[in-house]
Amino acid sequence: DQRRILGQQLREEWSKYSLFPRASKAAEFVEGKEVTVHGFLSRRRVKHSKLVFADIQVNGPSIQITSSFVDLDTPGHLTSQALRAIPLYSPVSVTGTIAKIHGEPGSASRIDLDLNSIQPLNAFPKDIIVSDGVQFPPSSRHLQIRFSDPLRARLLARPQIGFQLRKSLNGLGFTEVETPILFKSTPEGAREFIVPTRRKGLAYALPQSPQQYKQILMSSGVRGYYQFARCFRDEDLRADRQPEFTQLDLEMGFATGEDVMRTIESLVSELPAALNAQFRMVKNGDEIYPISKHGLGPKDATDDLQWLDLPSPFPRLTYQEAMARFGVDKPDLRVPFEIRRVDQVLTPDFISMITGLESPIVDAFRFRPEPTGEVASDSSSAFVDDLMKSLPSALAKNPDGAPVALVFNTKRPLCGLSSLGHLGFEGLTGESSGLGDFEDLEDGDILVFQARENKAFQGGSTALGTARNLVYQSAVSKGLLPRDLSFKFLWVVDFPLFTPDNKADPGQGGQAGFSATHHPFTAPLTDEDVELLATDPLKARGDHYDLVVNGVELGGGSRRIHIAKMQEYIMREILQMTDEGVGQFSHLLEALRAGCPPHAGFALGFDRLVAVFTHTDSVRDVIAFPKSMKGEDLTVKSPGRITSSQLATCHLAFAGRK
Amino acid sequence: DQRRILGQQLREEWSKYSLFPRASKAAEFVEGKEVTVHGFLSRRRVKHSKLVFADIQVNGPSIQITSSFVDLDTPGHLTSQALRAIPLYSPVSVTGTIAKIHGEPGSASRIDLDLNSIQPLNAFPKDIIVSDGVQFPPSSRHLQIRFSDPLRARLLARPQIGFQLRKSLNGLGFTEVETPILFKSTPEGAREFIVPTRRKGLAYALPQSPQQYKQILMSSGVRGYYQFARCFRDEDLRADRQPEFTQLDLEMGFATGEDVMRTIESLVSELPAALNAQFRMVKNGDEIYPISKHGLGPKDATDDLQWLDLPSPFPRLTYQEAMARFGVDKPDLRVPFEIRRVDQVLTPDFISMITGLESPIVDAFRFRPEPTGEVASDSSSAFVDDLMKSLPSALAKNPDGAPVALVFNTKRPLCGLSSLGHLGFEGLTGESSGLGDFEDLEDGDILVFQARENKAFQGGSTALGTARNLVYQSAVSKGLLPRDLSFKFLWVVDFPLFTPDNKADPGQGGQAGFSATHHPFTAPLTDEDVELLATDPLKARGDHYDLVVNGVELGGGSRRIHIAKMQEYIMREILQMTDEGVGQFSHLLEALRAGCPPHAGFALGFDRLVAVFTHTDSVRDVIAFPKSMKGEDLTVKSPGRITSSQLATCHLAFAGRK
Repeated sequence: DQRRILGQQLREEWSKYSLFPRASKAAEFVEGKEVTVHGFLSRRRVKHSKLVFADIQVNGPSIQITSSFVDLDTPGHLTSQALRAIPLYSPVSVTGTIAKIHGEPGSASRIDLDLNSIQPLNAFPKDIIVSDGVQFPPSSRHLQIRFSDPLRARLLARPQIGFQLRKSLNGLGFTEVETPILFKSTPEGAREFIVPTRRKGLAYALPQSPQQYKQILMSSGVRGYYQFARCFRDEDLRADRQPEFTQLDLEMGFATGEDVMRTIESLVSELPAALNAQFRMVKNGDEIYPISKHGLGPKDATDDLQWLDLPSPFPRLTYQEAMARFGVDKPDLRVPFEIRRVDQVLTPDFISMITGLESPIVDAFRFRPEPTGEVASDSSSAFVDDLMKSLPSALAKNPDGAPVALVFNTKRPLCGLSSLGHLGFEGLTGESSGLGDFEDLEDGDILVFQARENKAFQGGSTALGTARNLVYQSAVSKGLLPRDLSFKFLWVVDFPLFTPDNKADPGQGGQAGFSATHHPFTAPLTDEDVELLATDPLKARGDHYDLVVNGVELGGGSRRIHIAKMQEYIMREILQMTDEGVGQFSHLLEALRAGCPPHAGFALGFDRLVAVFTHTDSVRDVIAFPKSMKGEDLTVKSPGRITSSQLATCHLAFAGRK
Repeated sequence: DQRRILGQQLREEWSKYSLFPRASKAAEFVEGKEVTVHGFLSRRRVKHSKLVFADIQVNGPSIQITSSFVDLDTPGHLTSQALRAIPLYSPVSVTGTIAKIHGEPGSASRIDLDLNSIQPLNAFPKDIIVSDGVQFPPSSRHLQIRFSDPLRARLLARPQIGFQLRKSLNGLGFTEVETPILFKSTPEGAREFIVPTRRKGLAYALPQSPQQYKQILMSSGVRGYYQFARCFRDEDLRADRQPEFTQLDLEMGFATGEDVMRTIESLVSELPAALNAQFRMVKNGDEIYPISKHGLGPKDATDDLQWLDLPSPFPRLTYQEAMARFGVDKPDLRVPFEIRRVDQVLTPDFISMITGLESPIVDAFRFRPEPTGEVASDSSSAFVDDLMKSLPSALAKNPDGAPVALVFNTKRPLCGLSSLGHLGFEGLTGESSGLGDFEDLEDGDILVFQARENKAFQGGSTALGTARNLVYQSAVSKGLLPRDLSFKFLWVVDFPLFTPDNKADPGQGGQAGFSATHHPFTAPLTDEDVELLATDPLKARGDHYDLVVNGVELGGGSRRIHIAKMQEYIMREILQMTDEGVGQFSHLLEALRAGCPPHAGFALGFDRLVAVFTHTDSVRDVIAFPKSMKGEDLTVKSPGRITSSQLATCHLAFAGRK
């Protein structure tokens, strides 16, 4: 029958593709010796009917094979025919004699092989078109990885960065502990994924982070804990967010926040040298990415493409200072201009021109283009026009007024700043203003002004902070500033302990009108902040610290409350959580009560760390199977349809049906 | 108000417990120097009113402090009072002068400190009673870990085993790749946990293993993949099963099962030397566990308590052979007796005495006690009586008949084997029988007989296989056999590709009446087995291999089908899965179709590996926060109550309600 015939065909196909000689070991690669190599057939060049070259792709770089023959119907002729018959990009096993090893054996840059025989191990299909620069869709992640050098390179570099971090942490006496992923729902702050069980009414929840488990470990007497932990948040996704992500999670017993910051600095600072020892960096068009020094291929990176030393300790900024000087709580210190408050020297006329606010604060920065030559330098005015046209609506339609950009130009009235008026011009640019950036203006300098309400900073950024980053990125992409490959690390500290409730985050579900800024376990910064808990909680600062590099928040941590009574006081009295809410944390309160030592910790966003260190802006370039903005894995097509019977197993049903 | 008063008290408590001197670094530990040490106060001995000793527990071993004074109201007196006032087991910061370092600096066995000052960092509560050998409940995992040396030691050893494996794999050119935990439901074989989303009707599922993702990686050109992967199975739990567990998952491209087995052998064989370099083994009562050589404490293990070299390659047994000789597909090769088929030499009388089966097969083994001396040796008859009384009901109430044990005793008729009859006795013990084990019987030898149906082996064990393990374990615990600390590794190979459907496992939901024994991606073993797919699928063997040590299945793997057409043929034609079922695997079929190279892989149960190498029978001893038999985490009390509003977020409701 049909099944048998198909079975017979498959038997033939299987026996053709399934038995093949073992690949030769590295030590067997000696000129003149016969070796076997496995890889993908690529770049076949038919020189003439009796001479064919091809490359065998072995994990990135290639081995070049030569197939030539003199007489027809010889083994050489048959091998050559076989080589020409195999579809390009098919996996093959190749046996040949080594003609030449270019470079040192064991560290060769290229190997040439005279082909003796070739066997296909599967057939690459005709309907998949591979061409230079082809872009495969996310549903074909396997093709993206196979045919994109930067993507494959970053995925291969990622575990090496992880291994180096592990090595450092082990050396510091830390212990890796795996904690459960089937956890339970607690009001820690973010929205959780739930996992229904077959026990009626009961569900696990996936952990937002291993926070509570690691604090229990501190009470267990574990001195230094770490884990590359998968974390889950059912958030509305933004560009650089994933519903599941990996963090290097750590915690130190008998330690303060200061101890943790020093540890993280030492961890991160050891990376550049360790990576330079293993990788060379290559530049390919716009892409810069690391390639192992151990494989085939050229061995040296261009010097300026190495990872640069990271001076430590990293500078520290308080939240207030970061917001005032950079308009953002994760400043990019590569940006060569800062924000200054300028309303004290401006005229009411100008201020009312840029905002409808009463008595606002006005901030400004000065951006000086340094055309990098290669790219034709736009004039500053053209740059400003472009920028204003492409402003995101949050800036363009800001109710406090849009940003205003002026170009300094000595050929124009009041050097192009006439809208400031004489008084404003003198105030801003005069020496007595103390506003250094604006004293020595040159033609082409761009001044950007932005008003905001006269109140304390809240949240992650101001409008001018956002504009500052935009101007920088736009200037770099247009060649008005050089691309800066350095890593400018810093700490942002002294965050407010609590933040007024918003609708996006569930918070702790308390009745106080505010929630913990990070999570309810953060310790107050000083005795004074402990006192503020009772009197003016929104003024209390937490012993929290964010690690920031180049405008990316790489991680955050804090000292934790290790006194059970104080933890309960904050939950019950300050956040005004319900008994039930507090009860969800009873395991944590029990652990603290059992003589838990002081402790502090950190969570380093590992996906982001790898992205930063491999010079890409997107975590999707360093995750093998990333989720889309909708939380979908487009390759396997998850999430999938849930069935009634799956729900019934968990005693659940679709809402609105019986 | 009340809140303020409480706040004031907390401020005082916080300022008492939160500021403390930093601990001294290892290099600062020099005799005569003042150092600061953090740890838990333990073992306080008041010698007389002016002399107190205590230990400060620093990650296991201790530093001994001495507090003495001559005159009242001196600083020494106050410090001594402070030391006596702190509740035992509280965390403390201690500053003192080093009186003596026993052993080499940096590798000391003990350090004595003259106390200069002590500060409590929290207070251990009075209602937690700590005494020698105290057993804390699972709800207090933090106390279990703090006060159980073996538990803490195993948790600390676990990551070192993992690190060693990573190091070996990196050296072999493998790449660690993290794959998603938010996957989707596919009929791979086991029951899955589902994770509803906020998108109506859609759910993720937690992965049974990263199987499908790692095969996609093979098609992506990744040569060697590995991952310490969290896996999830919603199974009815057995003693050594957890709903979430960690496996060292790996896959090799351009490889056969043979390549994978060699790789695993080399990985595992490197462990003993690596562990001996880092750990010494200690014996504490019945417990044997590893302690780091780097901390305080004696440095040498007793020689015979080291990890022994593992000779490789490991022996291989086919499934048929394992079942015939050991009655189980994961034989414990430490057991010094094998199973023999004996019905050919027995009389029908005896056979009908031990079973109601028609023409059964009868197997037997001979157990010879070797009393180990220490424990008083029971007589063999008493041992047999005890054994029979405590038989598990699956054996005692086996419809094929219970096991029958006879004791060889030259003082009794037919040496105690009279129920065999003369013919049976001669047949069994005569030289011509060829049943070596029964030729040279000695007084006290125990013979165990068991009947079974005359048909091919199926499943994991026979009744006599179970009895054999029971006799061995019981004999060791009673001192009739020595405890064998060696690791006897072996491979079990040539499993049947398919197994008749049962009710416990969902399988692939096909209509064939059988399911894939392991998963539907296993390759047939030979061309002949490919042919059997169409003709007699239950006879087809798979290229699957199990790694077994001491009766524990440590992991399993297989060569995979890398030809899309054959994979679809097995799903559709052989397993008779529905279009929808096959469609769930379309991502995998797409990946295979795109010129996927041959590949094979393995999954090593990491929890079990650590348990075996740290000499415990339970994976719960090597998991920081294990789940109970009901799938509960008794510490954090998961799973928890699910609320209607959580369900509503996912467009779900409790079944049976509107």
